[in-house]
Amino acid sequence: MNYPNGIKKENIQEKFKKEINYKNRGMTLESELNSSNEYYREIDKAYIYKKPTPIKIVKVDYPSRDKAVIKEAYFTIPSTTDYNGIYKGKYIDFEAKESKSKTSFTLANIHPHQIKHLENIDRHGGIAFLIIRFTMLNETYLLPEKKLRNFLEKRERKSIPIDYFRNNAYLIKDSYIPTVDYLKIVDQLIGGI
Amino acid sequence: MNYPNGIKKENIQEKFKKEINYKNRGMTLESELNSSNEYYREIDKAYIYKKPTPIKIVKVDYPSRDKAVIKEAYFTIPSTTDYNGIYKGKYIDFEAKESKSKTSFTLANIHPHQIKHLENIDRHGGIAFLIIRFTMLNETYLLPEKKLRNFLEKRERKSIPIDYFRNNAYLIKDSYIPTVDYLKIVDQLIGGI
Repeated sequence: MNYPNGIKKENIQEKFKKEINYKNRGMTLESELNSSNEYYREIDKAYIYKKPTPIKIVKVDYPSRDKAVIKEAYFTIPSTTDYNGIYKGKYIDFEAKESKSKTSFTLANIHPHQIKHLENIDRHGGIAFLIIRFTMLNETYLLPEKKLRNFLEKRERKSIPIDYFRNNAYLIKDSYIPTVDYLKIVDQLIGGI
Repeated sequence: MNYPNGIKKENIQEKFKKEINYKNRGMTLESELNSSNEYYREIDKAYIYKKPTPIKIVKVDYPSRDKAVIKEAYFTIPSTTDYNGIYKGKYIDFEAKESKSKTSFTLANIHPHQIKHLENIDRHGGIAFLIIRFTMLNETYLLPEKKLRNFLEKRERKSIPIDYFRNNAYLIKDSYIPTVDYLKIVDQLIGGI
């Protein structure tokens, strides 16, 4: 089978297998998502990218005419989430975080305007969610925006307990290629299950 | 009339009027698009953002525990376009450029993988386009991805003549609030006109 980019499916899988073998098992959620998104793009399934880190540039040097070196810059608070793109004609938008706790996910890890952003996306017909990995438990969940909002509206707590994920989120099962096959869950969300 | 964020429509218009009055008439296309997108968000019409500038960070200093200063970084080639978001449930994706020429737009201003990206988005059901402003002519066009592809497939030229825009693109008429009301054109694209 050939994909629109002219590369054979077998060759793509071979490439990703090698990438996975090179890396140790301690891959971060971010690098696994980047690799999974790259895989989705190569098989022409979805076009979802991580946005660049937002920074404020203060000073730029030009040692030569064509070259620019940023000499002073600061990290700024992102206005939106880290990932967005298109899948099956739908607008996809999510934030991904790792949690070292075995019992809960601390809400302080997500900026309030990012939560508001996800709500806006959901209200306008996009697919919005969080991907949260509990690294000590080796459990990764996709929490749809509506379930997040439901939690926030009913509770005054500063963290979401693991049980809320187990009962209301979707477990993303470990897979080989891609390593985080979250679009399988998005298929269920689109199907309305 | 009140918007979901609780702000009255009149107050939002007042705010944007003031912003426009502060600025001179030489606003760049980028700042006008940012202001228009902000207006669309405030009236809860669309959620479209400019992506941060992609850079490669080489060196970061930590003068104090909470503070990080980037001391060495480089601009990198963007993997996608500058703007994306959601409107009427549709995925929107575009690149915007100014041209100082009175006769044509030089294609070297758009990276080949950005053109490929727009094609991918269109094929997957998103709304993909270029916004090109001819600053000397004070004419701003929205060129749908299909019309761009049509030009590229039929011609071996390195620039798109102004007449191609006049005959195949949509003129975005000057407006007051927002200054670049490109969603009016997107309405036509969605309507299939």
